[in-house]
Amino acid sequence: MSSSNASASSKPLRVAVVGATGAVGREMVKVLHDRNFPVAELGLFASERSAGKVQETPYGALTLKAFDAAVVKGYDVVLLAVSGDFAKAHAKDLASAGALVIDNSSAFRYDADIPLIVPEINAHVFREAYAAGSRLIANPNCTTAIAVVALGPLHKAFGIKRAIVSTYQATSGAGAEGMAELEEQTRNQLDGKPVTNSVFRHPIPFNLIPQIDAFQENGYTKEEMKVTWETRKIMEVPDLPLSCTAVRIPTYRAHSEAITLETIQPVTPDAARAVLADAAGVKVVDDPANGAYPMPLNATGQYDVEVGRIRNNIVFGDHGLDLFVCGDQLLKGAALNAVQIAELAL
Amino acid sequence: MSSSNASASSKPLRVAVVGATGAVGREMVKVLHDRNFPVAELGLFASERSAGKVQETPYGALTLKAFDAAVVKGYDVVLLAVSGDFAKAHAKDLASAGALVIDNSSAFRYDADIPLIVPEINAHVFREAYAAGSRLIANPNCTTAIAVVALGPLHKAFGIKRAIVSTYQATSGAGAEGMAELEEQTRNQLDGKPVTNSVFRHPIPFNLIPQIDAFQENGYTKEEMKVTWETRKIMEVPDLPLSCTAVRIPTYRAHSEAITLETIQPVTPDAARAVLADAAGVKVVDDPANGAYPMPLNATGQYDVEVGRIRNNIVFGDHGLDLFVCGDQLLKGAALNAVQIAELAL
Repeated sequence: MSSSNASASSKPLRVAVVGATGAVGREMVKVLHDRNFPVAELGLFASERSAGKVQETPYGALTLKAFDAAVVKGYDVVLLAVSGDFAKAHAKDLASAGALVIDNSSAFRYDADIPLIVPEINAHVFREAYAAGSRLIANPNCTTAIAVVALGPLHKAFGIKRAIVSTYQATSGAGAEGMAELEEQTRNQLDGKPVTNSVFRHPIPFNLIPQIDAFQENGYTKEEMKVTWETRKIMEVPDLPLSCTAVRIPTYRAHSEAITLETIQPVTPDAARAVLADAAGVKVVDDPANGAYPMPLNATGQYDVEVGRIRNNIVFGDHGLDLFVCGDQLLKGAALNAVQIAELAL
Repeated sequence: MSSSNASASSKPLRVAVVGATGAVGREMVKVLHDRNFPVAELGLFASERSAGKVQETPYGALTLKAFDAAVVKGYDVVLLAVSGDFAKAHAKDLASAGALVIDNSSAFRYDADIPLIVPEINAHVFREAYAAGSRLIANPNCTTAIAVVALGPLHKAFGIKRAIVSTYQATSGAGAEGMAELEEQTRNQLDGKPVTNSVFRHPIPFNLIPQIDAFQENGYTKEEMKVTWETRKIMEVPDLPLSCTAVRIPTYRAHSEAITLETIQPVTPDAARAVLADAAGVKVVDDPANGAYPMPLNATGQYDVEVGRIRNNIVFGDHGLDLFVCGDQLLKGAALNAVQIAELAL
């Protein structure tokens, strides 16, 4: 099922995108336009370095402005595609001025009083907080957002007792520079030239890197723990035993995840498929005999998260379900989800 | 710990490699030479089409011969790097003539009376069968061979109750043609030319394919079930609950695997590292703070399987262990293991 678009009849709003030149910022602008978000005025904010430059957008060529908190406070909706440090410095100030601030960084995701929202799963949390005056909302980690659109409905239907996730993450998770490094260095390798790396810790062409973000005390990376912490918060299961191994692979912008579940209720593949077929934001792609299963090749540029390879698993039997999901890291993993949150306020 | 080389003092043997022009066959010849296998005469056999052609080897330029069962029967050791159908047609006949036949196909791996051997794990099974006159030995699936060098010692030390494996498999699993398709089609994509696929079911550049081999009734692929069936047989745990998701990614010749274990005894990462540090065929690469973990970039061309990312896992607590392994698909996954089996007979 596709996500529904915003009503064009809503009162137009002044929308600011901060970090507008980055991979996520650019997608935010495209998604606002594509979903007919009621935009009265669009402000694109970036660093001093980019200020004055013109950026092509679906709204026409727009001039980038240097971020100025006093100016951005005047907007109704502020989408932050910035670093955690920048968000920490400005997000609360902007929100207290009345703007609805949706932050794509991890700065506030784990604060108990700040909602972390995937609209298909916990829109009610947004609505309650918004009605009570909350104006700062956290947008989740890309891997988490892509997983929970499938895990949420499965949890509601069957109960998830444990989950094990192995990821196949695209270079876009490191921004436009990550994708550029993949392309340039792959070309170098094919041409027999030296292969270097600056965005990633190791060369990425024809390789994989089982590290995303910094290592924690417990041997997991922060990226892996984000999937645990954020899935628990979004699905409102504070102690869900969920383990993740996060791996960067040489793909551009769609993340895939192999997920093994132990369920509380018995589950069949057909029952799981029926639940997922009705789930918002999910597209069941599960006709293996005809070679149909989730792949970056097809999920790239799509709003829906593809889910397939659905089967009872050998380890947990009729209380076990395996699935493979694939979603666009820049869309459901970032820009789309942020715009969907803004739509909840319309 | 590295695997020990064959003793050069053994009586020299006549060795045939059947399927000598393929990716695995070529590696078998290199490994025989590199490990000083006592070769009295090396016969390279291939299809009629290749017969008469000259192949460069570490033993010099050798002329390929068309396969002729009557001729191959005269060899002491026959390494088969051929299809399952070809193996079914000839392997038993060759073995009954007295040659030690080591078959890299899946044709005989699941026959109760045919040993399936990874020397580091179950050399005793080979020795008993060989002493009793068995001359046909199955070489395991690449993903299985790479996993069990780590799982075997961990099982002996802590007991494995359940295992969940997600793979990141290289294109070499589809032979030299698979690697060539990755290279050619990646170049096409970078050059803006049409990207096609013939070896793989879908285009592989900057993509992944969550299907390797054919789908089975239970929703798993045959590749995935091979990992379950073969791990059970090699580790002698006939009902081990092990689930695999097998995924092809755009890498050349090293397979990686994210493995989650529930153990019978409690386990700590340090205890697991100590066990693995003493394990034959394993190289512990586990210094995450310094960016050291298993990767195709480093595991390619190496005999040892790299093991790292060792940690207690969140799902099974102190009875849970996560690890990431990476091994050369053509070496431990095929040619090296076959030659190691032959070494057991010296």
